[in-house]
Amino acid sequence: MRIVLVDTNERLVQNWRNLMGNVSTARHSVLVMKGRLSILSGSQINKPAAVVSPGNSFGYLGGGFDLALREYFGGTKFEQYFREQLGDTYRTVGSTKVVPLNSWGRDGFEYIVYVPTVVAPSRPLFDAERPRETGFEPVFNAMWNALIHVPAGTQTLVIPGLCSGYAGVPLDISSKSMCFALRLYLIKNTISKDLQRVLILQFLGYNYAPFMDNDWEEECEAVGIDVRKLMKFDVANDSINEIMPII
Amino acid sequence: MRIVLVDTNERLVQNWRNLMGNVSTARHSVLVMKGRLSILSGSQINKPAAVVSPGNSFGYLGGGFDLALREYFGGTKFEQYFREQLGDTYRTVGSTKVVPLNSWGRDGFEYIVYVPTVVAPSRPLFDAERPRETGFEPVFNAMWNALIHVPAGTQTLVIPGLCSGYAGVPLDISSKSMCFALRLYLIKNTISKDLQRVLILQFLGYNYAPFMDNDWEEECEAVGIDVRKLMKFDVANDSINEIMPII
Repeated sequence: MRIVLVDTNERLVQNWRNLMGNVSTARHSVLVMKGRLSILSGSQINKPAAVVSPGNSFGYLGGGFDLALREYFGGTKFEQYFREQLGDTYRTVGSTKVVPLNSWGRDGFEYIVYVPTVVAPSRPLFDAERPRETGFEPVFNAMWNALIHVPAGTQTLVIPGLCSGYAGVPLDISSKSMCFALRLYLIKNTISKDLQRVLILQFLGYNYAPFMDNDWEEECEAVGIDVRKLMKFDVANDSINEIMPII
Repeated sequence: MRIVLVDTNERLVQNWRNLMGNVSTARHSVLVMKGRLSILSGSQINKPAAVVSPGNSFGYLGGGFDLALREYFGGTKFEQYFREQLGDTYRTVGSTKVVPLNSWGRDGFEYIVYVPTVVAPSRPLFDAERPRETGFEPVFNAMWNALIHVPAGTQTLVIPGLCSGYAGVPLDISSKSMCFALRLYLIKNTISKDLQRVLILQFLGYNYAPFMDNDWEEECEAVGIDVRKLMKFDVANDSINEIMPII
């Protein structure tokens, strides 16, 4: 699968480039682009393709990237279809729903992967005094959910900056969480579930020993992760390179 | 379906009684009990039954009500089964997974409805300076998800106090959110989706006009909700009776 990270914000895109480097695997590749959804073309989008909606709990597509989705796929009539597909009901932040586009699909897109990030945009999500709980964690969750719920067989997944608009998460935090989630996703089949669990716990700042009592330390050595750096990881200040395997 | 609210905490149980009163509908009834999971018997549990696990993101059952579930259904071997059913992977707070008990079932219980409320119990969820974001909203979400995801045909759903243990949400907040979610669930088929949306937005404190632009005000009058009280609702101080229909 090709994962396309696309946004109009120059700095966010540069962060992505810095954090992702040239990483790709046998099964996945990553393309980072500056621009709008509408600039993506047949050369970047292999069908069937999916695109992430980092939406609100009621499926309205009135702002930010969601508004771009609405305009791209069919305006307010499309929004009506989208909300009907979501059951016109409250969907919690942290949930995921894959919405088939059916006849609304175009240019190879067949699905929207809906991951609500706010209940409603009446106030920002981010609180500078609680960057982990209101920045790093919700962005990691939305990114992780989008990646693991994309339908099997999807050839391209398009993802914009998450929570970086009205939700107010600073670009450095959004890009860091998105890229950690993506890099972890890219290697998830090469590391044990135990190590995956420890990496997530340490990234998010839950240094909880009872959830880390397996033999992952030897595995760290085998894949080139410094255990001491992992155990002292501070998401606000440390590079994710410190806790990623040396590929 | 019968919804059984059960907890060992006297005050939480009393809060539930005060907030639920004698409410029941043609399709659902509510039973409030003080005690442990193990005191529930054939007289309260009609099969097939389900019980909520307000767990952590990795499905460990090491504390609180989850520990009671582990002991009740089969100890650490059951926990191993449970975590395998969850895919031994990270599941975001805000997600839901219905886990069939299969041969681990007993006393009529056939499902656990898993709604993770914390990533790991290394720090409390609740922050007294942000009671909406860290108290009312996560509890409402977990309760709402449990109710809407319970398998069709379930006769009894057992729910403990949510987030009121190590997650640290005060009993008054937990019980208020649980009971608002439950009372809303009980009436969801008698009010429009538009009004349901407005009630949720106002309860959670997202007074966002673009999501409230339908004709729900007339409906409020018809069901006995005071529109002005609804628009000024302050979850920290106002009674949920103020924004519930007069049944």
